[in-house]
Amino acid sequence: MPLPIALLGAHVNGKPNFKTVVWFNMVHGDPPMISVAVSKKHYTTPGIKENKTFSINIPTSDMYVVTDYCGLHSGSEVDKSKEFELFYGDLKTAPMIEECGINIECKLVDTIEFEKTDLFIGEIIEIYSDEEYVKEKEPDASNFDSFIFLMPQGPYLKMGDYLAEAYEVGTTYKPK
Amino acid sequence: MPLPIALLGAHVNGKPNFKTVVWFNMVHGDPPMISVAVSKKHYTTPGIKENKTFSINIPTSDMYVVTDYCGLHSGSEVDKSKEFELFYGDLKTAPMIEECGINIECKLVDTIEFEKTDLFIGEIIEIYSDEEYVKEKEPDASNFDSFIFLMPQGPYLKMGDYLAEAYEVGTTYKPK
Repeated sequence: MPLPIALLGAHVNGKPNFKTVVWFNMVHGDPPMISVAVSKKHYTTPGIKENKTFSINIPTSDMYVVTDYCGLHSGSEVDKSKEFELFYGDLKTAPMIEECGINIECKLVDTIEFEKTDLFIGEIIEIYSDEEYVKEKEPDASNFDSFIFLMPQGPYLKMGDYLAEAYEVGTTYKPK
Repeated sequence: MPLPIALLGAHVNGKPNFKTVVWFNMVHGDPPMISVAVSKKHYTTPGIKENKTFSINIPTSDMYVVTDYCGLHSGSEVDKSKEFELFYGDLKTAPMIEECGINIECKLVDTIEFEKTDLFIGEIIEIYSDEEYVKEKEPDASNFDSFIFLMPQGPYLKMGDYLAEAYEVGTTYKPK
């Protein structure tokens, strides 16, 4: 199935690190909360537990090579923060990537422990986006240019053509 | 951000019902487990709690109108099960949709309670798919034809063109 792609940002051992993730989604709307499942073995995991902050950075479609690179290498072997222009919000330990189209700054509010993964639940403190994705102070995704991962093994796909309006096209359906 | 789309199947008051969801994803690989966040107010929610079973049905792209319809109407007002050919697996109370490309049959193993949503954690008991998405007994998503939802308000988008191999294209990246 098609999944979204993000670079998960956290401070690990006092330094910014980014890990490619596809197992994340919203879990609550008001307040907005997001979950991300990360292997207990990953380099990033103790950093999120220690600082109780993380970021979800949605890459633009031209970032697919560096995004895959960040999934292939652990922060224990390479300094992935060098590959990007970084910025921070109020949380100070949730590093974010300028080049990404959308950055979601999260405060860890819960950790659900599974056998091999931790499901981190983050309250969204702030969302940063390029101006082109905002119209009259409201989010406008119509120009959003990202890419998706086809589970289980890929490939990466571009986002495709417009199909229909959500919460609207279903009004034309004739029930059986 | 782009999100996957599913019809969440459950028995409610002894009858099959389907609700359109986009807040779901994997949380664990072995055993495979999936999470789905559902408003506490939704008609489907008590049914999942009662029977401890649900299904995730990934619609094909030609199903976008009926999928939107299933998000616009509650099972308390219409019988959405009439719109599909149904089948069941071993769990008996996780109704699945023949017309969908992929059906994921889940046993409820945990419920994480938030203020306005329940995050249902399901262990995947079985995955059913059309033959065209299987090659030599392995999943083969290359022909998979679904669609995605662009958060926060849509639209629906087709899945786009091939971009690159995952876990591979990153090997060509030259770190800074």
